[in-house]
Amino acid sequence: MAFDRLITKIAQTQNPTVAGLDPKLAFIPSYIKEECFAKYGKTLEGAAAALLEFNKGLIDALCDIVPAVKPQAAYYEMYGWQGVKALHDTIAYAQEKGMFVITDGKRNDIGATMEAYATAHLGEVEVEGETFAPFGADALTVNGYLGTDGIKPLLKVCNEKDAGIFVLVKTSNPSSGELQDRELADGDTIYRAMGKMCESWGEELPGKYGYSGVGAVVGATYPAQLEELRAAMPHTFFLVPGYGAQGGAADDVAPAFDKRGLGAIVNSSRGIMCAWQKEGCDEHEYAAAARREAIRMRDAIREAIVGRVGRIMLENV
Amino acid sequence: MAFDRLITKIAQTQNPTVAGLDPKLAFIPSYIKEECFAKYGKTLEGAAAALLEFNKGLIDALCDIVPAVKPQAAYYEMYGWQGVKALHDTIAYAQEKGMFVITDGKRNDIGATMEAYATAHLGEVEVEGETFAPFGADALTVNGYLGTDGIKPLLKVCNEKDAGIFVLVKTSNPSSGELQDRELADGDTIYRAMGKMCESWGEELPGKYGYSGVGAVVGATYPAQLEELRAAMPHTFFLVPGYGAQGGAADDVAPAFDKRGLGAIVNSSRGIMCAWQKEGCDEHEYAAAARREAIRMRDAIREAIVGRVGRIMLENV
Repeated sequence: MAFDRLITKIAQTQNPTVAGLDPKLAFIPSYIKEECFAKYGKTLEGAAAALLEFNKGLIDALCDIVPAVKPQAAYYEMYGWQGVKALHDTIAYAQEKGMFVITDGKRNDIGATMEAYATAHLGEVEVEGETFAPFGADALTVNGYLGTDGIKPLLKVCNEKDAGIFVLVKTSNPSSGELQDRELADGDTIYRAMGKMCESWGEELPGKYGYSGVGAVVGATYPAQLEELRAAMPHTFFLVPGYGAQGGAADDVAPAFDKRGLGAIVNSSRGIMCAWQKEGCDEHEYAAAARREAIRMRDAIREAIVGRVGRIMLENV
Repeated sequence: MAFDRLITKIAQTQNPTVAGLDPKLAFIPSYIKEECFAKYGKTLEGAAAALLEFNKGLIDALCDIVPAVKPQAAYYEMYGWQGVKALHDTIAYAQEKGMFVITDGKRNDIGATMEAYATAHLGEVEVEGETFAPFGADALTVNGYLGTDGIKPLLKVCNEKDAGIFVLVKTSNPSSGELQDRELADGDTIYRAMGKMCESWGEELPGKYGYSGVGAVVGATYPAQLEELRAAMPHTFFLVPGYGAQGGAADDVAPAFDKRGLGAIVNSSRGIMCAWQKEGCDEHEYAAAARREAIRMRDAIREAIVGRVGRIMLENV
């Protein structure tokens, strides 16, 4: 099961974090951009080449200490199909370097169409007897607004391809409560109802550490909800965005972890990608700066987990 | 405002329907596939070429009688970045032929990332002083689960680029009710609450026919909800999927229209794309068969609207 693989990687690196790869041109050192624009012109192709080059440097600098990367599809689509090719190449490169890849696409649709998304991002498509993995990520974020028949096709592909999904439950943005916090007639909130659906969908994909292949996205910016949902969703692995640039701190994310110090992976995107800008170091050192920030983040989160559950994370995995 | 343009096109063609372009290889005539595989191999590139060729034939056959097309992103992503290039080329070709293009992507994310999606699908991106429209559709379907700050960046781009959005309210799939029909503590349902948010977001993009640039997706398979929402959302233009292959009939979609016979556009994907297979005609006639089905659909829906509101649709626009 895909999240068993992820948890094993987290244990090996002793690091429950994921580096978000949301590359905008503004985050990329000039020397990379100049090289790519010289080669491909000031075009979408040139921009996409810069994205990929930037990502490769980050992946090289992080792959031995960070278990996973999370490319955000929007930032690649923003540079056209050329950018989407860079998404494909980024996924392949990260996997080559042994990293677990979560494509953050928040895809959702009705059954027949969700099958196509599942095939696209996690599965394989057949073309006249030849099979191809269109994007081939290890996991995909999805939106469950359409209910079970928008999720079932994913479970089938997850089962066949050893992949996983993360369903949006409580997102990290300021207005997430507008809908998600609304109270239902039975006393639940919408995010709690979504959480229950995740627990139920996950029964089809059990994992050896007690966490299923159906994870949930729960934002670092709402620590009270993180704690409540950790208790209510004992079989659901959490992807926790919102750390760092969005305001979540290490103590805020600690409630996402269970008594074993397991159960979640915390994302930082801008914090890691833009560490060179924040440090004010030479742009050629952008990857080293990302590594320094990844280590600071790892250590802060480990300390917060130990502070909360009284033990070193993962020592018995 | 984008939906003013769409409504004008609907009036010109006297046809409130949109052809869904959800091409799978199984829907495409052999002669097209053979030609493309001969040229590009049995590869994702070959498959993508076949998708585009198939779409171009449909667009040529439909562009004078159908106002809009709705390519579904999933079916292009399923064939990798090569398929996504075919999505780009399909959008450009349909617009060249005068059609309004709705990209069905159901995108959603937090503010900063939603900006990237808005730029990708509706706007323009800057690369070192040069601007490019990465996909350049006229409208995009989106999912509002994240609340207002996942929608605001779209409104900005819609305003600048004369584009529109359709927010998922009540989807056409069998399990849509699992979450969307849940009753809230205040007596509303979730889909009604989402509908109210659409009305409120739409205030920023008013249109001359009374409909804003924030539309809603409401499925043909739930005619009672269509009627209820038409009354509750007087400024929100509806995109109605679920006609034909999913089971919605002309009488089911009639409640989506207001007393003027305006207010909605009804989608058919497989019904039109696969008309040649259903008719059992020669595969070389696939585009003519699509046109015949598009005319049948147009006439059935016009008749149902006249039957319901007692007048010819759009006569005074």
